[in-house]
Amino acid sequence: MNVAILGFGTVGSSVARILCDLKPEGIRISHIFNRGVARKRVDWTPSHVVWTEDFDEILRSDADVIVELVGGLDPAATWVRRTLEAGKSAVTGNKKLIAAQGIELDRLARTHRAHLLYGAAVAGGIPVIPGLRQGLAGDRITRIEGILNGTCNFILSQMESGVAYAHVLKEAQRLGYAEADPTEDVDGYDARAKLVILSRIALRVGLEVDAVACRSIRQVEALDFGYARDLGCTIRQIAKAELRADGVSAFVGPTLVPQRSPLAWSRGTENMVLVSGQYGGDVVFSGHGAGGHPTAVAVVSDLIALAHGSHPVDLPSRAASISGEFQLRHYVRFVVKDTPGIVAEIAGALAAERINIDALFQRPGYKKDNLPFVVTVEACAASALRRALERIAGSAWLAQPPIDMPMLGE
Amino acid sequence: MNVAILGFGTVGSSVARILCDLKPEGIRISHIFNRGVARKRVDWTPSHVVWTEDFDEILRSDADVIVELVGGLDPAATWVRRTLEAGKSAVTGNKKLIAAQGIELDRLARTHRAHLLYGAAVAGGIPVIPGLRQGLAGDRITRIEGILNGTCNFILSQMESGVAYAHVLKEAQRLGYAEADPTEDVDGYDARAKLVILSRIALRVGLEVDAVACRSIRQVEALDFGYARDLGCTIRQIAKAELRADGVSAFVGPTLVPQRSPLAWSRGTENMVLVSGQYGGDVVFSGHGAGGHPTAVAVVSDLIALAHGSHPVDLPSRAASISGEFQLRHYVRFVVKDTPGIVAEIAGALAAERINIDALFQRPGYKKDNLPFVVTVEACAASALRRALERIAGSAWLAQPPIDMPMLGE
Repeated sequence: MNVAILGFGTVGSSVARILCDLKPEGIRISHIFNRGVARKRVDWTPSHVVWTEDFDEILRSDADVIVELVGGLDPAATWVRRTLEAGKSAVTGNKKLIAAQGIELDRLARTHRAHLLYGAAVAGGIPVIPGLRQGLAGDRITRIEGILNGTCNFILSQMESGVAYAHVLKEAQRLGYAEADPTEDVDGYDARAKLVILSRIALRVGLEVDAVACRSIRQVEALDFGYARDLGCTIRQIAKAELRADGVSAFVGPTLVPQRSPLAWSRGTENMVLVSGQYGGDVVFSGHGAGGHPTAVAVVSDLIALAHGSHPVDLPSRAASISGEFQLRHYVRFVVKDTPGIVAEIAGALAAERINIDALFQRPGYKKDNLPFVVTVEACAASALRRALERIAGSAWLAQPPIDMPMLGE
Repeated sequence: MNVAILGFGTVGSSVARILCDLKPEGIRISHIFNRGVARKRVDWTPSHVVWTEDFDEILRSDADVIVELVGGLDPAATWVRRTLEAGKSAVTGNKKLIAAQGIELDRLARTHRAHLLYGAAVAGGIPVIPGLRQGLAGDRITRIEGILNGTCNFILSQMESGVAYAHVLKEAQRLGYAEADPTEDVDGYDARAKLVILSRIALRVGLEVDAVACRSIRQVEALDFGYARDLGCTIRQIAKAELRADGVSAFVGPTLVPQRSPLAWSRGTENMVLVSGQYGGDVVFSGHGAGGHPTAVAVVSDLIALAHGSHPVDLPSRAASISGEFQLRHYVRFVVKDTPGIVAEIAGALAAERINIDALFQRPGYKKDNLPFVVTVEACAASALRRALERIAGSAWLAQPPIDMPMLGE
């Protein structure tokens, strides 16, 4: 099986490295493609490898499988499409592409009797896609809760020890865990693409990427971890999707998770996926979700599966209406200029939306004109809580806008 | 694809139930086999199902796949063999059979162009076998550490709160988590069969089942958990196998695991598998390892894979010499009749085997004639430690034989 690698960056060169080291039976690197390929050239690949910057040369060649690692929608989408149309198989780690066009590309692959594998698109080194596709096909998965973005997990697990967001972000950038522009990661778009892919495989529903609500972790402050701890929780960026009678609920954003939940155990850049099945109960996968080598392991595993004629179980997904509504408890943190009557106003706004207050916490040691305190509310729809918070949005006593986060159960 | 279910006990009836509920495309139950089948008959299976106690009838029939859930070596081995020889595929959850004869049966399947799947043989509802086979084939796995027996995990995690072994065992038996004769579970034989199967798939080595050293959890006492806690650890039945330059090290037995290790998080009957890859680092799988439904999910997933023509990646394994030696720290708990010179004697016996003492702990509140204390030693071979303990085995000051357990690193 001749393999052409498109994109010789961190992951692409790791794929080549592992293939050269492990020499899996029946797999041969035939081409390596990169823009300005001359400067990418290395001396440790087999001498027969053709280094090229001409995609059409690869398409015309005897390459059987193309590994797309250039990322982004364009031109990756065109290249994968043309690969499949030529009856060649494709392996990709491109979450953006698979989230947006996976169903269509799967169909294209079937039409041309080719295969499309993307085990590297979600949680790189953790075999969550093969695990779900091959190993849990016999269950009816009803819920996914995941930590799907290593950057956010690094930032939030560092903030646990009291460090401010801005400091940890800088540290993450210095270590290469975060981009100069961290938007994709911290605002949830990266995790959202992965959640859409997992929902397709596990819940068998096709979700529109843009329809999934995302909230940023930027608004989380170090003091929220103190309150979370008092509640027996910590804070993680959670991507959650759940089957409901009338569709699917899904969201991505900072969330309180109980200390006793496996989701609270993840540290650093670790990823974790918890799926709940009707028959098998909860299953947890965790490990290193990103980085050159772990992601390359997923790519090479897909190549080995192809070389062994082991095609993934291809289960149909259906379109589903999507909502951001979960009936969950919520955490709301206010920072106020203390005056009499604030709690009464907040309680009134919540009562108007029929939301019950669960508890009220105030840690000592803050100034009266910048006083944080936390209200937790009983399970309610996020939309009702937003409406309640809008009722008090203009109040003079708010020193800054309140932040609300859902709380997962144990 | 016509499916015959052999054995209509807890797992067999769960398999039938899930197939009737989910109706996976292309799968039809054709036969249900059980001894005294009349009393097993239920009214919720399709009317076309043939209920039989004649295996040969199934072999002659149009059944394409046989699901073997009778367990044990005999007659299960004969039936699986005859199934494969007839060119039919087999799905089994029989860990004993696959541990002892898996390599041979895999070969037989290949010869007859049939397939043998056994995702249910290890950690039932956790897709560890498909995860390793499909998802981590592209890595070089060098180490497996697992909690592979739910009964032991239930017992040991309950003992954490200070309850004695005998009490917890009775409770486990009452709840149906432990057999009347718990030998297979508590003495490690069940976990050992699973470790041998995982070693074949993950480490690609064929181990003789009997060659893997097993130690019983019966000797662990509630007080050991107190000492373990002082050491930042807890105690779990660990099944561990590791590739070494000269073969494989493997053992099963009670082990100190750091509180910060995922292995310490497992509670109740949960199973957990931690694999370490040269490229992808550590990956953790956890979930419900046993019970009718979780095990049935693994069986049904294998059936769906067969129905979709998705064969597992079949990677060769090699025979390997096996040893029980790991260079690990060890915990040794003594119970003594206190007299002067005991520590000097122990230190002398250890020194004679060139083992360094790491620390010595003694909790207050025990009587002088039945005084427990703990010695931890620096990394050493288990055999050297055994020799050292044999040197003092006859000492009059020993109130009972010492217990030693390896300690895993973080």
